[in-house]
Amino acid sequence: MDGIEALAFDTGGTVLDWHGGLSRAMAAAGERRGVDADWVALANEYRRRSLATIVNRVGPRFNFDDVHRDQLDRVLDDSGLTALTAADRHEIWRTWFALDAWPDFAPVLRRLRTKFPCVSFTLLTPALVMAVSRRNGIDWDCIISCEMLGVYKTRPEAYQGAAKLMQLEPAQILMVACHNFDLDAARREGFRTCFVKRPDEWGPAGPPDPVPNLGCTLVVDRFDDLADRLGC
Amino acid sequence: MDGIEALAFDTGGTVLDWHGGLSRAMAAAGERRGVDADWVALANEYRRRSLATIVNRVGPRFNFDDVHRDQLDRVLDDSGLTALTAADRHEIWRTWFALDAWPDFAPVLRRLRTKFPCVSFTLLTPALVMAVSRRNGIDWDCIISCEMLGVYKTRPEAYQGAAKLMQLEPAQILMVACHNFDLDAARREGFRTCFVKRPDEWGPAGPPDPVPNLGCTLVVDRFDDLADRLGC
Repeated sequence: MDGIEALAFDTGGTVLDWHGGLSRAMAAAGERRGVDADWVALANEYRRRSLATIVNRVGPRFNFDDVHRDQLDRVLDDSGLTALTAADRHEIWRTWFALDAWPDFAPVLRRLRTKFPCVSFTLLTPALVMAVSRRNGIDWDCIISCEMLGVYKTRPEAYQGAAKLMQLEPAQILMVACHNFDLDAARREGFRTCFVKRPDEWGPAGPPDPVPNLGCTLVVDRFDDLADRLGC
Repeated sequence: MDGIEALAFDTGGTVLDWHGGLSRAMAAAGERRGVDADWVALANEYRRRSLATIVNRVGPRFNFDDVHRDQLDRVLDDSGLTALTAADRHEIWRTWFALDAWPDFAPVLRRLRTKFPCVSFTLLTPALVMAVSRRNGIDWDCIISCEMLGVYKTRPEAYQGAAKLMQLEPAQILMVACHNFDLDAARREGFRTCFVKRPDEWGPAGPPDPVPNLGCTLVVDRFDDLADRLGC
């Protein structure tokens, strides 16, 4: 781990429990309107479509919050859930700003920050990351949102832009995520990479791509292991 | 103060003692090389030229750190201080990344953040703000650097861009600074404004524009007064 000067954290699934928050918010809205659905599967479909819409974008006129609002309507309507009102949908959408972080993250971040600057490097909007971070007692050294860069992961320019703002060589940055697609792209730009396992990210279904690709600098089961390995 | 949802802090002179740090670094380099100068005046001239070079830029190929490195050579050479070597100059320049914050700031920021998201909204680079913030025990909710926006204060687009990233109306943001030029521009875009007096910002010479312009929402002598007024 020699030469690592800073840590960059994917935030969406790596730090935040979007599945738990969104599936519960959908189920609560359904219960209010007396309609039922496979909320767990629906939350995952919503996440899949939202990710597919924002990933790799260059200079979009929308941000990830806009995508979340738009794709929510589509996925609900495609599932015949038209009983959910505009107010229900607004409330489900705002759940993104009130997600829980994985419980092991906030205490470990404090350990990691004693030694390394720790940055949220994310597809999410800075407004969202600010809100959930305040809610979960998370203090970042900096939030580098793809909204600020104008180009979204997994485009090379996103990783290059983050490294440039941090004034570090990519090899001095450890990118931490629970997704191969993000880590592979970071590695191609010269970042060091840490795969952290988040088996509950997609709820009971399990994550779609749970096996760390070869080439990761580090693979850890829990954030605590990362802090241990980095001597924090 | 009704309706304020977040605070945006100018950081250069409002939070950081650039004058003390830079004038001491210049004097130390001079002493090493056996040359003398009015270091206090020189630091101020350096700051004036650097500010004049970055303020109002749109899409420059350089950031404020680049300006600081370039203008340092110019101001030293214009003063005949050619005895200062490249290593001396590098060391003076790097002082920007190791400045002290005004001693009243870090504790008050903790008070303010219990109630409001607090953002560094700055001409400085995020790498610099990260470094000095770590050094001074300062945790921001977010750093919004003009380097990220691609447009520098006092351009209207800089203030509009910061408000957009914060997902707030300008009138929901209290811009805090010790400079009229920044606050005037923020006010023109609809921000509320707080002038905080920093009588030592320019050293013994005193600040060039110390009297708060009419129209400030709030004028305070110290950061503590700001926290008191906001009920934190």
